[in-house]
Amino acid sequence: MNRRFFIGTLGSAAVALGAGRTQPHKPKYIFYMIGDGMGVAQREVAERYARMKYPSRKPRLVMNSLQVDGLTATVEVSGKVTDSAAAGTALACGAKTANGVLGLKPDLKTPLRSMAFDAKDAGMQVGIVTSVPIDHATPASFYAQVPKRSMYYEIDEFLAASDFDYFAGETMLGRKKAKGKTAPDKLVKTAGYQLVQDRTSFDALRKGDAKVVVEKDLGYAIEGAQDIPLADFTRKGIELLDNDAGFFMMVEGGKIDWSGHANDLATNVHETLAFDEAVAVALEFCKKHPDESLLVVTADHETGGLNLLEDKPLVSVIDAQKHQTSFYTRQVSKWKKEGTMDAESAYAELSKSFGIENLQGENKAEVLKAVAASLTDETTDTRSKEIQKMYGKKNAAVTSCLHALAAQAGAKWTSFGHTSTLVGTSAWGRWAEGFGGQNDNTDLGINLRKLILS
Amino acid sequence: MNRRFFIGTLGSAAVALGAGRTQPHKPKYIFYMIGDGMGVAQREVAERYARMKYPSRKPRLVMNSLQVDGLTATVEVSGKVTDSAAAGTALACGAKTANGVLGLKPDLKTPLRSMAFDAKDAGMQVGIVTSVPIDHATPASFYAQVPKRSMYYEIDEFLAASDFDYFAGETMLGRKKAKGKTAPDKLVKTAGYQLVQDRTSFDALRKGDAKVVVEKDLGYAIEGAQDIPLADFTRKGIELLDNDAGFFMMVEGGKIDWSGHANDLATNVHETLAFDEAVAVALEFCKKHPDESLLVVTADHETGGLNLLEDKPLVSVIDAQKHQTSFYTRQVSKWKKEGTMDAESAYAELSKSFGIENLQGENKAEVLKAVAASLTDETTDTRSKEIQKMYGKKNAAVTSCLHALAAQAGAKWTSFGHTSTLVGTSAWGRWAEGFGGQNDNTDLGINLRKLILS
Repeated sequence: MNRRFFIGTLGSAAVALGAGRTQPHKPKYIFYMIGDGMGVAQREVAERYARMKYPSRKPRLVMNSLQVDGLTATVEVSGKVTDSAAAGTALACGAKTANGVLGLKPDLKTPLRSMAFDAKDAGMQVGIVTSVPIDHATPASFYAQVPKRSMYYEIDEFLAASDFDYFAGETMLGRKKAKGKTAPDKLVKTAGYQLVQDRTSFDALRKGDAKVVVEKDLGYAIEGAQDIPLADFTRKGIELLDNDAGFFMMVEGGKIDWSGHANDLATNVHETLAFDEAVAVALEFCKKHPDESLLVVTADHETGGLNLLEDKPLVSVIDAQKHQTSFYTRQVSKWKKEGTMDAESAYAELSKSFGIENLQGENKAEVLKAVAASLTDETTDTRSKEIQKMYGKKNAAVTSCLHALAAQAGAKWTSFGHTSTLVGTSAWGRWAEGFGGQNDNTDLGINLRKLILS
Repeated sequence: MNRRFFIGTLGSAAVALGAGRTQPHKPKYIFYMIGDGMGVAQREVAERYARMKYPSRKPRLVMNSLQVDGLTATVEVSGKVTDSAAAGTALACGAKTANGVLGLKPDLKTPLRSMAFDAKDAGMQVGIVTSVPIDHATPASFYAQVPKRSMYYEIDEFLAASDFDYFAGETMLGRKKAKGKTAPDKLVKTAGYQLVQDRTSFDALRKGDAKVVVEKDLGYAIEGAQDIPLADFTRKGIELLDNDAGFFMMVEGGKIDWSGHANDLATNVHETLAFDEAVAVALEFCKKHPDESLLVVTADHETGGLNLLEDKPLVSVIDAQKHQTSFYTRQVSKWKKEGTMDAESAYAELSKSFGIENLQGENKAEVLKAVAASLTDETTDTRSKEIQKMYGKKNAAVTSCLHALAAQAGAKWTSFGHTSTLVGTSAWGRWAEGFGGQNDNTDLGINLRKLILS
């Protein structure tokens, strides 16, 4: 164990205030960073892996070593487990709504106001950054008002009309729903946005180039060097948005959630680390402007009910797996379709892919049974229809391998959906203490808006 | 949702300091409160129950609404999941040791120093309070130095020699190991302690009566009014220990862990609430001495791998169960011995006891199968031999009912042992900020000792 003991710097900042030094009364630079589905356990297992893998470089996750920590409740308006739309709305607008709803009250009509518009009205530049599609629930919470999160085309209309300065994320899902209408890329261009879709154009973006929409698929961090990782989206955002009136930037790590739904621990760890790299970029900037910056890192909910039962060596376990779930799912589907692969050979192949060759007895029998089933019958998927629709069919063979890998890591997934477990919130900067302690996701939204409007 | 948003008062305290007001440089009153096996989820589910059950009186747990919150890592010296001995030693002495060891380095020889002795040397009075036996691992960490936590007789010798002012807990386990030696009660009397074993004598204790050992079995909070609840142990400690030089009091909620091992959610909730009542007593005192008090609430580890998957109405689910696990285990054992109870009747009886009469389909079949097995065969216990020895045999019938009850509460236990999940640490008082953020259990010990020695 080589954990650094942190004593917050708030006291001394407050003393400095008391001594009469002139300081801004509100943050000029606000980073609001949301790990989708990133529970306390997800942050912890990623840190343990990083500590073992890069002992000198990364003994702590950046987000785990900020100045203030808190725990945040996430349930939606009626007390149910939240989805990303209701949670995003709570974080963006400071008000509870129902699952599936973006920027509207539970009556599906009364508009709620995202703090990003308050920031814009206050003269700040605004950036919305994500590792999933730009019109997905979490980013859309900051600019759209629709009764259903799947209304991607309408969300893109809100995006185009937002007048925000910088959007960066994966390809707009509204493109698939634009039949007979103006395509989303035309929508944003007509609204005055420059649309950037490759690394070269992205690198060429310079201060003054706003308004910009970067639309570029990131893939998964586990599968190697990403063309434009989330950290680069964030760095470019800082470059483009920095100005005398400051900026507000929301950054989402969206595939932490996706890999949680799949119960894919290795992918989850890599996505959390990729998100932490973006947090590192934000913190580096904040430290250059210590009296003017506020960094808040939180999550919209936990996904997968991840439990850490034992501390085990993680590097070899996590590093065995080279791809994310759907790569293996496609492989098994192909084997099934071709009909030439027997269960034993498929098991041998998969167990190598997941580093679980040493499984024995009951544990081996269980995976083998799932592999055999996946090669013959339809697989059994116990998740809700909604979740299946959103995240694709679960493959019994792959899932049983993922669970075996998690067991080797001393971890256990207990759900394929979201849970109501409290999530961690961490903050850095002179206003950080307002985000510590135990709070509700709406408190984060309310408190941040107050700072913007102060 | 009716969560109060907390903004820490540290800033203003620091400003007051900066303004030159004279304040003590170290805490006069220290409460170090340890929920054994109390993870973040245990605190959260107890709060949800209390909020639904007593909406006006208890919208928040007291421990969940202090000024500063942090997350604490708990693993023992070699990175394994900790037991209560290694964790207690880390919290008491600020140093890692191996599982099973109390107050000694992993070499089983070199002594470690508990901060309680530093407090004593600094002139403070010292109290050690618990809801389990006074010589159990957690309390013993604060006064004993033995290579094995089960050396209860030797632990009692350390207790008698400690010269601490107030001990309160359940009957010393060393009594059973005293064959041919001076009985532990004689040991403590010879050392000058008054031994109190009933409520009347307890109530008669007055300031100046120290040194005192209160030895009184508390039973379980779920089974109704306790003769002397943990909160009363704490209140009496304040009365006896308060003096011009201040005091240090450790208070343990020990049966949170025991019910976690049993996967008994209802008992766990009641034990966490009983512990929170003790925290409330401590906080009330601290608020009367706001500039001189420090309250730290933490846990030694999480037990049971409790996950909160869904938010469900909890009152009827938790209130259905009236006894703790072993009551039902004895009942099933009796049925088995008598041989007159058939599985269907036993199921009917048990399902009423646990409020799971509405189980259907597979869920019902699973419990019914476990009940039938418990009435005929030896039950299967998958826990380690050590855990079985410490916490008794698991009964398949009762455990399956407990798991069904948890499912109705939207919760899931994933282990019968301890986990390496981070635990929550919360603090109140002028020195609270040193206990926020992400830290290690040894950091808590080191930081508290620094304050005592400062």
